[in-house]
Amino acid sequence: MQALPGFRDFLPQQCAERNYVFQVWREVARRYGFVEWDGPVLESTDLYRKKSGAEIVDQLFHFVDKGEREVALRPELTPTLARVVAAHERGFKKPLKWFSIGQFFRYEKQQRGRLREHYQLNCDIIGEPSLASDVELVALAIDLLRGFGLTKDDFVVRISDRQFWTEFLQANGTADERRQEILEIIDKSEREPREKTKEKLAELAGPVLKILEQGATSDRLNQIQAGLQTRGLADFVQIDVRIVRGLAYYTGIVFEIFDRAGKLRAIAGGGRYDNLVAQLSDSSANLPALGFAMGDVVLGELIRETAHARDQMAKAIQVEHQIQVYAVIAKEERREVALKQIQAMRDSGYRVDYPLTAAKVPKQFQTAEQLGARFAVVFGDEWPNVAVKDLGTGKQETVKSDDLLAHLGVGR
Amino acid sequence: MQALPGFRDFLPQQCAERNYVFQVWREVARRYGFVEWDGPVLESTDLYRKKSGAEIVDQLFHFVDKGEREVALRPELTPTLARVVAAHERGFKKPLKWFSIGQFFRYEKQQRGRLREHYQLNCDIIGEPSLASDVELVALAIDLLRGFGLTKDDFVVRISDRQFWTEFLQANGTADERRQEILEIIDKSEREPREKTKEKLAELAGPVLKILEQGATSDRLNQIQAGLQTRGLADFVQIDVRIVRGLAYYTGIVFEIFDRAGKLRAIAGGGRYDNLVAQLSDSSANLPALGFAMGDVVLGELIRETAHARDQMAKAIQVEHQIQVYAVIAKEERREVALKQIQAMRDSGYRVDYPLTAAKVPKQFQTAEQLGARFAVVFGDEWPNVAVKDLGTGKQETVKSDDLLAHLGVGR
Repeated sequence: MQALPGFRDFLPQQCAERNYVFQVWREVARRYGFVEWDGPVLESTDLYRKKSGAEIVDQLFHFVDKGEREVALRPELTPTLARVVAAHERGFKKPLKWFSIGQFFRYEKQQRGRLREHYQLNCDIIGEPSLASDVELVALAIDLLRGFGLTKDDFVVRISDRQFWTEFLQANGTADERRQEILEIIDKSEREPREKTKEKLAELAGPVLKILEQGATSDRLNQIQAGLQTRGLADFVQIDVRIVRGLAYYTGIVFEIFDRAGKLRAIAGGGRYDNLVAQLSDSSANLPALGFAMGDVVLGELIRETAHARDQMAKAIQVEHQIQVYAVIAKEERREVALKQIQAMRDSGYRVDYPLTAAKVPKQFQTAEQLGARFAVVFGDEWPNVAVKDLGTGKQETVKSDDLLAHLGVGR
Repeated sequence: MQALPGFRDFLPQQCAERNYVFQVWREVARRYGFVEWDGPVLESTDLYRKKSGAEIVDQLFHFVDKGEREVALRPELTPTLARVVAAHERGFKKPLKWFSIGQFFRYEKQQRGRLREHYQLNCDIIGEPSLASDVELVALAIDLLRGFGLTKDDFVVRISDRQFWTEFLQANGTADERRQEILEIIDKSEREPREKTKEKLAELAGPVLKILEQGATSDRLNQIQAGLQTRGLADFVQIDVRIVRGLAYYTGIVFEIFDRAGKLRAIAGGGRYDNLVAQLSDSSANLPALGFAMGDVVLGELIRETAHARDQMAKAIQVEHQIQVYAVIAKEERREVALKQIQAMRDSGYRVDYPLTAAKVPKQFQTAEQLGARFAVVFGDEWPNVAVKDLGTGKQETVKSDDLLAHLGVGR
């Protein structure tokens, strides 16, 4: 028996890597004053049907429960956010700066960087229309990746402006229903041959291809870049109007983050969606909003492929997970006093392990090494003294058992 | 639109309480040398059918996916553990000491302390038959609750011995098929009238009721208690053979943890299940095992009802979640230098917030107070100096902006 296709078992090493990613996400989001929330992993299927996006409903894990309800495993967080914010926003000071770390599900063909479940960090600012909040959000996205030791040589934020395109299409007299089509063609243009894009763009091929090939900018994009410049983050960003994001609901600044080498799928993506909360929640509250999501799968690939980020992860996991003390029970008649000391060390917060049953001393030291213990504390003939061996340096000292905690505290 | 019945939204306060519970679980489990792992929330329904327990399959959230697979949201972790351990145990040194924190699902009638989803800590020791591991596991369960500030006056571990009953029933010549029935009658006896239990016990009513009413013990139980005595934990435990645990797969020491007042459902429960891994995994590996699960719902109720535990939680959440610095932008022309300093403070790990748009100074101080900021740093006329106000003491100092980080470091 195996896990279902597209689902992961997290053995201790994988689980430690997953938790490391969560920890950095949490730590950096909090530095930005974001507070954590979460919703259920199972929601009414209607919540996802409402949001224009047939593709998402096609890819849902959905079913009818024993109470005849149509339910679905959440494919994304935004509909839940809109539901929760519409119900509770009156109790919170605006803008809300909320983040969430959770698991999401899509039934889709498996490929590199795409499973049927993944974890995602979602960061959203609700109730703030100013461009200052777009800068704050992009800066957070950059600092999240910097938190993993990734640098401007490892990733790039490609930042764009939906409104630039809306205005361009209006100026060209493009009909409303054609506008979303054009945006989808632009969204696909990097993955399709030029000729095909040209054909699909038809009457707009000339001016649109010119913009895509020569680049363009807008006042809003220039302001965002100036804001990031102030924070010393401009080198992480590239204005690139080829980014439009596929989804229909974006209204302003949008961005996607890629590895510099361009080998992987997007690491993160998001933007401003000023009308969505009202739309999804049937609420009268007009809440301008912006946010992004960052998944664990592509990010994990980039970390593992980038030496300095991989080393930082390995070191963090080691510090966080290693046993600090291994109690070597050299004489079985010392087991009882050893257990008293083990309890005292654990009560003081040390991570302590020991042999549950009698074992030869060299084997116990071997186990201590395998567990990566910092110290071995030997309970044997010297009792009421114990030998404390620093397994890093090999240095060994004899310590009164009453002084053991104080001694470890110094070595900590 | 609301969350589905039996499912929770975690607004920031609830999410902080949830994360606090996870953090204490993780911290204490690691002190005991347990390492974290996890499995998928969706598994093949067969994995749960295999394990004798029609009740569990009746309560599954299960469905057929788009690939015609019968799948289910996990109701418990043990079948996944058996699957993963059977596949990977050769790569790990025995005994495995593994823990996991995750969400589980049951479609059942809602009542106090029972939702349709909950989080559970699972702790298991695999590959160790000695009673020393039973003591280690019970000690961990006790210290997990002590980690929340709960004391021997708040909870009790009722510890029992399945083998005591097996031996008793063998000695009385009870047939194999009747044995599990008798255990289930004993399991229910505390919740049923004595007369009903007596009737159901039939030929065994005399001796069994005598044991239930007068108590009993076994060598194994006495050894467990002695082991806990050594660790100073005996006061948390009560030998109580009325506990047998409903599930068929337990083979040895079993226990359940209750609030002392006896008002709530069980906080945790578990025991030894020496045959289950082989049975569930069709593996030849004979892996004695023991473990327990602790849910977040009843534990959360007990914490909130117990003043000292509630206070500890509130304090931990405050320390962990509060903004440390609120940047007051007293003059808009200082916004740019303020943002440079905000970036520097965040880079140094401080949690910093500020007004995204122009706001009156008293309103900014009000926001700083509401966010629970430790310090307000005022960017205004005094630039390149800033005013640093300790919002706890009200004390204000003027600091050179170049010295701001050093100054905060001292106050930290």
